[in-house]
Amino acid sequence: MNAPAPRFIPKDPAFEARVRASFTTQRFLTLLGATLETVRPGYVEMHLPGRPDVRQQHGYFHGGAIATIFDSASAYAAFTLIPPHETILTVEYKLNLLAPGKGDRLIVRASVVKPGRTLTVVQADAFGASADGEILCATTLQTLMAVPERPLTPPD
Amino acid sequence: MNAPAPRFIPKDPAFEARVRASFTTQRFLTLLGATLETVRPGYVEMHLPGRPDVRQQHGYFHGGAIATIFDSASAYAAFTLIPPHETILTVEYKLNLLAPGKGDRLIVRASVVKPGRTLTVVQADAFGASADGEILCATTLQTLMAVPERPLTPPD
Amino acid sequence: MNAPAPRFIPKDPAFEARVRASFTTQRFLTLLGATLETVRPGYVEMHLPGRPDVRQQHGYFHGGAIATIFDSASAYAAFTLIPPHETILTVEYKLNLLAPGKGDRLIVRASVVKPGRTLTVVQADAFGASADGEILCATTLQTLMAVPERPLTPPD
Amino acid sequence: MNAPAPRFIPKDPAFEARVRASFTTQRFLTLLGATLETVRPGYVEMHLPGRPDVRQQHGYFHGGAIATIFDSASAYAAFTLIPPHETILTVEYKLNLLAPGKGDRLIVRASVVKPGRTLTVVQADAFGASADGEILCATTLQTLMAVPERPLTPPD
Repeated sequence: MNAPAPRFIPKDPAFEARVRASFTTQRFLTLLGATLETVRPGYVEMHLPGRPDVRQQHGYFHGGAIATIFDSASAYAAFTLIPPHETILTVEYKLNLLAPGKGDRLIVRASVVKPGRTLTVVQADAFGASADGEILCATTLQTLMAVPERPLTPPD
Repeated sequence: MNAPAPRFIPKDPAFEARVRASFTTQRFLTLLGATLETVRPGYVEMHLPGRPDVRQQHGYFHGGAIATIFDSASAYAAFTLIPPHETILTVEYKLNLLAPGKGDRLIVRASVVKPGRTLTVVQADAFGASADGEILCATTLQTLMAVPERPLTPPD
Repeated sequence: MNAPAPRFIPKDPAFEARVRASFTTQRFLTLLGATLETVRPGYVEMHLPGRPDVRQQHGYFHGGAIATIFDSASAYAAFTLIPPHETILTVEYKLNLLAPGKGDRLIVRASVVKPGRTLTVVQADAFGASADGEILCATTLQTLMAVPERPLTPPD
Repeated sequence: MNAPAPRFIPKDPAFEARVRASFTTQRFLTLLGATLETVRPGYVEMHLPGRPDVRQQHGYFHGGAIATIFDSASAYAAFTLIPPHETILTVEYKLNLLAPGKGDRLIVRASVVKPGRTLTVVQADAFGASADGEILCATTLQTLMAVPERPLTPPD
């Protein structure tokens, strides 16, 4: 589940700059304190530090916080492979919680399974990380769609 | 998708008080500004006011925020039907985004499809609400498991 | 889960004839003994008689047989709303088994939740039917894509 | 997605014999012509020869046939790790079709991601195989539940 991403050829040489620029516009990710780490063709790694307010009542990472990082990391993994002037929308995903999300930090690794002109499928795993190592706590399979980019304006 | 919940008989007459007490312990939901509205046997409605920081870069509700409210509302819908001294864990869910989440407020309605001694299946819909009405923007199907309750202590 | 389908306007007035003609080309459905019953805009009902070879070792409908009827019924429900010269591919689905599939006949009812130019989302329920009535035994949420039709030739 | 299964310790030393004995009782799999190949702790491989009646109208493997082999292979992968006197039920799965299922034979490889006392999660991939090699055509993520075994009698 955690294999290195297959080697994909990006259609936009500026893919990493575009992903990192998009990330800075995501206020919801800022609210949670998420960070964007590795960005490679077909692969993205994001982290979520374990602040108290992203945990649930037993102290584990909240399922909603895990879903948020999954959704974003998978979207950015797909984003690395699209042409300029396109963007990525999540169509759907399925998420399995496997173990309590313990640790100081949540690490999400998202890898493109199948890129496509219209639809891209991404698989991602979440790990609770501490000084003792990493424990797989959730896995997801997500479908995304490439659409023409549009200006950054609020919805009417 | 939005039919009234079937009539279920709660096993714990204090189900509503338990759900509302649990909600107040959820710091992640407080961080987002979510509110718990209707709580009935097998049915829960939650709202999320459209603060800027729960929206994505085009001004729509962020997919992660929608997932968070879905996950919690579905868990509480299952929670209404369990016996005292049990609690509910999310096993997995699948979520389809259907339309941009526009509006002043996100409304999530979660209904138990099939309760069970161990596993409960919940279906939920999310609507973007404004003065113009409600638009269905996402739908989910979720599996939850009842487990014995344990004390409210942080994980070791 | 079993509400009447919303009223959709078909883009191809010959939608029912196209669905029924396509059904007759599906040898896998013939192998199982499936029948196509109701075909309305955005809605399809299929039946599977309970022959011994579509049941599993305890005598219930086999999960694979249920999945097959779900997949086809959902595809045909989406098919009723596409323009002429397009066809429908399954992108993905999620299926929950809710109760043993007992009975003389499996009934699957598939309703379009959200039609789209490219993607359509369908919700479907499966019921085990006997003289005693119907029991909900499975539910699914499926994403389908409209693509240009191509000639009926075998793959190279 | 196709990594070797992690090394799991089976709780029943006779796991392989139990899996193979169960397979012979599955009339639906016999109807399709499926074969059970490798059986290892936490891992099962099944094949489906490309008979015309398991293909759809364009000659590709039918989605329902793929789902059937997925469901069975994943269930048997979970089955390899349960104690004697328990059996496995499918709770739910999500399946993505990635490419047309071409080839002489469908190969499904199912690997346990997370075993559990009650719930087990399995990931599986399907490949269309021919003299030219294998092409990944579908992937699935499935949740299964261990339950006490019961006698092999038809449902009442």
